Amino acid sequence: MTLEIAKLKLNCDMGESFGQWNMGQDEHIMPYVHMANIACGFHASDPDMMAKTIQLAQQHNVSIGAHPSYQDLLGFGRRSITHTPEQISHLVCYQVGALQNLASFYDAQIDYIKPHGALYNDMMDNLEIFEAIVQAAMPTGLPLMVLAKADNTEYLDIADEYNVPLLFEAFADRSYKDDGSLVSRQSPNALHRKSEDIFYQAMQLANFGTVTTVKGNTIEIQADTLCVHGDNEESIATIKRIFTALNNK
Amino acid sequence: MTLEIAKLKLNCDMGESFGQWNMGQDEHIMPYVHMANIACGFHASDPDMMAKTIQLAQQHNVSIGAHPSYQDLLGFGRRSITHTPEQISHLVCYQVGALQNLASFYDAQIDYIKPHGALYNDMMDNLEIFEAIVQAAMPTGLPLMVLAKADNTEYLDIADEYNVPLLFEAFADRSYKDDGSLVSRQSPNALHRKSEDIFYQAMQLANFGTVTTVKGNTIEIQADTLCVHGDNEESIATIKRIFTALNNK
Amino acid sequence: MTLEIAKLKLNCDMGESFGQWNMGQDEHIMPYVHMANIACGFHASDPDMMAKTIQLAQQHNVSIGAHPSYQDLLGFGRRSITHTPEQISHLVCYQVGALQNLASFYDAQIDYIKPHGALYNDMMDNLEIFEAIVQAAMPTGLPLMVLAKADNTEYLDIADEYNVPLLFEAFADRSYKDDGSLVSRQSPNALHRKSEDIFYQAMQLANFGTVTTVKGNTIEIQADTLCVHGDNEESIATIKRIFTALNNK
Amino acid sequence: MTLEIAKLKLNCDMGESFGQWNMGQDEHIMPYVHMANIACGFHASDPDMMAKTIQLAQQHNVSIGAHPSYQDLLGFGRRSITHTPEQISHLVCYQVGALQNLASFYDAQIDYIKPHGALYNDMMDNLEIFEAIVQAAMPTGLPLMVLAKADNTEYLDIADEYNVPLLFEAFADRSYKDDGSLVSRQSPNALHRKSEDIFYQAMQLANFGTVTTVKGNTIEIQADTLCVHGDNEESIATIKRIFTALNNK
Repeated sequence: MTLEIAKLKLNCDMGESFGQWNMGQDEHIMPYVHMANIACGFHASDPDMMAKTIQLAQQHNVSIGAHPSYQDLLGFGRRSITHTPEQISHLVCYQVGALQNLASFYDAQIDYIKPHGALYNDMMDNLEIFEAIVQAAMPTGLPLMVLAKADNTEYLDIADEYNVPLLFEAFADRSYKDDGSLVSRQSPNALHRKSEDIFYQAMQLANFGTVTTVKGNTIEIQADTLCVHGDNEESIATIKRIFTALNNK
Repeated sequence: MTLEIAKLKLNCDMGESFGQWNMGQDEHIMPYVHMANIACGFHASDPDMMAKTIQLAQQHNVSIGAHPSYQDLLGFGRRSITHTPEQISHLVCYQVGALQNLASFYDAQIDYIKPHGALYNDMMDNLEIFEAIVQAAMPTGLPLMVLAKADNTEYLDIADEYNVPLLFEAFADRSYKDDGSLVSRQSPNALHRKSEDIFYQAMQLANFGTVTTVKGNTIEIQADTLCVHGDNEESIATIKRIFTALNNK
Repeated sequence: MTLEIAKLKLNCDMGESFGQWNMGQDEHIMPYVHMANIACGFHASDPDMMAKTIQLAQQHNVSIGAHPSYQDLLGFGRRSITHTPEQISHLVCYQVGALQNLASFYDAQIDYIKPHGALYNDMMDNLEIFEAIVQAAMPTGLPLMVLAKADNTEYLDIADEYNVPLLFEAFADRSYKDDGSLVSRQSPNALHRKSEDIFYQAMQLANFGTVTTVKGNTIEIQADTLCVHGDNEESIATIKRIFTALNNK
Repeated sequence: MTLEIAKLKLNCDMGESFGQWNMGQDEHIMPYVHMANIACGFHASDPDMMAKTIQLAQQHNVSIGAHPSYQDLLGFGRRSITHTPEQISHLVCYQVGALQNLASFYDAQIDYIKPHGALYNDMMDNLEIFEAIVQAAMPTGLPLMVLAKADNTEYLDIADEYNVPLLFEAFADRSYKDDGSLVSRQSPNALHRKSEDIFYQAMQLANFGTVTTVKGNTIEIQADTLCVHGDNEESIATIKRIFTALNNK
């Protein structure tokens, strides 16, 4: 059987170092992704790291996305912090603008917005927060990346109201439930750990727009992009394999 | 004698509250200035306060300037922190972009950049830092506000190289030395304290482009704008009086 | 009728300024309270402000309490941030130790611990968090201040296990429900606004160990201390009146 | 020739991770040092990391020192920030107390204070700052670690005034000038890079209380402790070799 691979793009979190602290292997991963979600200084990164990551993305012709979050360096943006919707809009505007102007300084540009960590989860769980982020995205003209679910109507309705395009992302290394949501990270089978399984799920998403759920059912997930993580040599090799397969289509 | 008043504009630091902490009397001063230097979150302000101050400036048709600084909330940006020129460019880009995008969210725009506190002083004392800020200003197309000295050639030469317009500011409430620099704040006669003296110096700058130095000499200071401070009722009244005189020209 | 006043003490949040930002009227309130809850730098204050407030408390013979919180300057410690119980213990230890050593530098000492804001609320709502704070208090030998409820058994059982004394506090300006809990701040009748009502509730607590609930019932509230707030001249006058009445007993 | 090895102890910076960011190889180095300088949250570390490092030191019977610094996470405490002497005392008290109380929570104790980075350098260059740190150390009863110079009279005079013991440290991997000061890190020959040279300088200091300067002269350096750094496998091996030699004396 020949896999027929669609135009799925790989996105990856980048620029997550901070001051003297290093995180990630940006230089090894950048060549094998299409989209770099660059931290904006609230959960990770700083102006110098953002500048460095923008330039690295440019060198590899990788699309740059703003990766805003709650202001929580210590918790790496993984803890929810209560905000009004208006405050959510402001903190997204602040971070996106900061990255945008640094990109402009290096003759680069931002192509999309993808919230990080707890802000991403809260956006998916709470339509008021989602709408606040859509409102922040609107004047920038940038698309907003969200989780591809089985049914995305609610999100699309709000985004359409503000004329903000959505980019839907799926995960190659996460298990799915029958309703298209992700199995919680608390659950033991939340993650695919074998490289083969991750590659297979990526290919299934790319070729057929489906995933096989933990219950063994096949559900539709229409995604524009796949989120990948490269923490070690094996996972970077998997990213490279998926990247090559997607590009050779 | 009729005072002939030139097109001098008043600029004032604004948006210097932070979280639950209030600072300044922005609502009482905004009606009487032409330019609001809005803090960008590094020495004061936060995304919500920036948004609020942008809207207040809009209501009063006041021009908005980005007021970036070293990252030092505790010291209010008044302490120098060693940076390479490249790092200076990055931190200015970051803050200006953040304010710019918040302004854009409210259909407003940034008109100029004025560094704050220790960064302002370091910019005037160190041409490498000045050049780094000019480089940060360049892609934004915004003018940079600097201190008007008797001789501004060095600054103009660098700014011209990058096509960045300069706005020169003078002070109504500070004493000048014969070379056009300000008497140090450490000195007992650094500040004019009497409202009448402040008003007089403002009018002299506006009408004749000169100041009378502490030694009693008259020197030329060509300024585009006057920096004013309004900490109490009397100083706000003085601002109002200068503002009215300038506008009634 | 002569009011018979028990040994209730007044406690008040202090040292809530930060860097250049002022908050509170510590110098006007300190003479009229018995216990100063001093912020420890995580939601407000900084080492210099802590030092200043310690000295002010000393001058007025006021007992000093550590007022630790979640790390959230921007939100003033009023937003919950998820922590493991162990992390709660660590952040309380850190802040209490910092204040303790500053006090020791000025020949003063800490007499108790009172968590602030969201950490206080979370402690009362979640016994795991309460226990983590009790554990942090244990090696210091300091008592922990908690909300006096109609039934405090659960808290006393845990505190006894670690040999940590509890100080129970009531509120003069908050409305109570029949179960001895406070009416939510979201509710319109959460706060007593009239000075007379606040004074009356303080006296009722001091003399009879009771409060009259929003439903008009009288319930027992055994408190060691009353929490007061002084934001303006009227509330400071009320504090002074309560303080005088308690001391003249 | 038998080397006669004095009671020199090895000290090493530890606990320099922050939140999700890892730094250092504490678990590999702790078994081979006598003294762990633990960061206190201002240039690195956080309450959880401090707690973890305290426990690691306990397991290996390593003496714990507080390693306070300027408040500068982004710059890792390597940038000077202007403070009054009183502010210096306060920030040292704050950090030392925080670590002390965390240690106490784990039944451990702090044995000394060693300022970090720019604060250490400023202390050695400016006797007012040195005195402010001595004053902060005094009520704790802890000794203060400083750089061993050829002539330490000035430091000893001030420390004696406050009854604060000094611990003198030397460096195994840094080149010395004839006056006993270190060759600046800016200079190409500032560091010994060969393991053999580092080991040799350590033994010379331990056995003879001397170092050979860059000019080839032998000068006396009376040290209580040697500062070591372990960034990679080779440097950790050198630490282990020095540690073994010192202990086998």
